[in-house]
Amino acid sequence: MRKIAIGIDIGGTNTQIGFVDQDGKVYLETTMSTTLGDTFEEYLVELHKVIEDAIEGSEEKFDIIGVGIGAPNGNYYKGTIEFAPNLKWKGVIEVTKLITEKFGVPAVLTNDANAAAIGEMMFGGAKGMKNFIIITLGTGLGSGIVVNGELVYGHDGFAGELGHVIVEKGGRLCGCGRRGCLETYASATGIKRTAFDVIADRNQETLLSKFSYDDLSSFKIYEAAQNGDHIAREIFRQTGKYLGEALADFVANGSPEAIFLFGGLANAGELILEPTEKTMEDSLLHIFKNKVKLQISQLNEGDAAVVGAAALAWKEFTA
Amino acid sequence: MRKIAIGIDIGGTNTQIGFVDQDGKVYLETTMSTTLGDTFEEYLVELHKVIEDAIEGSEEKFDIIGVGIGAPNGNYYKGTIEFAPNLKWKGVIEVTKLITEKFGVPAVLTNDANAAAIGEMMFGGAKGMKNFIIITLGTGLGSGIVVNGELVYGHDGFAGELGHVIVEKGGRLCGCGRRGCLETYASATGIKRTAFDVIADRNQETLLSKFSYDDLSSFKIYEAAQNGDHIAREIFRQTGKYLGEALADFVANGSPEAIFLFGGLANAGELILEPTEKTMEDSLLHIFKNKVKLQISQLNEGDAAVVGAAALAWKEFTA
Repeated sequence: MRKIAIGIDIGGTNTQIGFVDQDGKVYLETTMSTTLGDTFEEYLVELHKVIEDAIEGSEEKFDIIGVGIGAPNGNYYKGTIEFAPNLKWKGVIEVTKLITEKFGVPAVLTNDANAAAIGEMMFGGAKGMKNFIIITLGTGLGSGIVVNGELVYGHDGFAGELGHVIVEKGGRLCGCGRRGCLETYASATGIKRTAFDVIADRNQETLLSKFSYDDLSSFKIYEAAQNGDHIAREIFRQTGKYLGEALADFVANGSPEAIFLFGGLANAGELILEPTEKTMEDSLLHIFKNKVKLQISQLNEGDAAVVGAAALAWKEFTA
Repeated sequence: MRKIAIGIDIGGTNTQIGFVDQDGKVYLETTMSTTLGDTFEEYLVELHKVIEDAIEGSEEKFDIIGVGIGAPNGNYYKGTIEFAPNLKWKGVIEVTKLITEKFGVPAVLTNDANAAAIGEMMFGGAKGMKNFIIITLGTGLGSGIVVNGELVYGHDGFAGELGHVIVEKGGRLCGCGRRGCLETYASATGIKRTAFDVIADRNQETLLSKFSYDDLSSFKIYEAAQNGDHIAREIFRQTGKYLGEALADFVANGSPEAIFLFGGLANAGELILEPTEKTMEDSLLHIFKNKVKLQISQLNEGDAAVVGAAALAWKEFTA
């Protein structure tokens, strides 16, 4: 029997499921729609069925040590998903309680960025590190902070909202209702907004001028920059500038050993790393200069969320 | 025999020494000049003598469990004071090693703001709290951050430099050589700078117009505000605004249960609390609103540094 933790990543559209061993190796991987059923209980019936089917369809036998769940607005302390704007279940959902009842194994839950942090620590580039942060650059900007070898959940379970520090007073309107949040500049959406700003400001020739706002994406800006488009490179520079300044402030607080960039925008590699690192180093307080490693996450983006969620279960139920 | 920890607070001018029991009660308290002797070793001879004299002069017998030291630029991991601009000893001083050799008991060291955090947690308003921050508002702004019940030292021992997050791009020149650091606005010095700014901006009648920059102090601004001086009240409002905005950003990262203000400027009580709290609440991300307690430290300012340093020793050598 192979000992595994089930990692479940609940996204707005799809739920990813994977069986992950103690070394981070993924054995069974499957996907289902998150929108199945009207209630979380109905969704859970489907989820249980998908997992049972996967186990039955496999030649291997598994010993399940527990379930780890990554979900938006996931609260680690309470095991709940609370008022998640991108999920159809409203209010407070008692996820770990219901999963434990259904599956008969212990369950633990956190948000996706925290799950990525645990994944990076157990299976990625943060192995052996006690103080680091991972920044997820997707539609928004999430962060998972590790201090003294432990994830920072804060008093209420919602710590790590680096995407919502204010980097520009009176700046861009954020989905949270405030203005100037980091994620309105540094995220897959943020870089698109910067693209429109820069194009408007420069009014110069660029490969990007043929795209509507709907058609533009961080990947298209990346492609243009790779093709030597000066405007696209300037867009990355400005994005890295905002991110680098915010990271310098974070370093003043937490003095991490490393900062990992993950997901979406992080796939641009040096294009985002280089301006971010330059600005961060220029902005750092003297005692922190040339100490903090800025790196792309070593997790495989395809299954990082599932592996991270499973890593949380491994940490929680075997440590 | 009464079990005590010796708390030593090394300041630029004076060194404060106190014998502190497990409940935070101070038994012997004495002071000596920090500038005695040319080297740290010579200073240590004097320090040892002062403590021996204090013990001999006392009727009580003490069982010393260890020495805790609070010092500027103190590095907890290494037990060193490193390149402290306000101390006469240059370079890296191996403080805990030399003290242990001299006193024959274990020694532990950290910076003054971290010592205050431990003091607040063991003997002050943070008893039982696992996640909080203490802000020391003296000549500069220091901070001690506690996460999951442990002090945040970061990878290199220098975490907690909240005074050096940038709150105004291209803002006031800071002693660190950069511009716009929080401590250039929110500290005993910062409020004096704001006073000159506001007086210059308003050109209106104020009790403060008779003071030179040298003569002005945060206490005089406090007195004027207490006497109903509108300009002085505006100065506190602007100071609280900068501090409140920075605290809202900190909350997004660490989601603390409470924030304690300590020292100098914190003695202004509601005058600084009220505008800081208002701005912080106005600026907070929705999920953090009305959750974080903003309070004045419950430590007695006169011996807080010594008590905090001793608390560190109690935590380190008996936990």
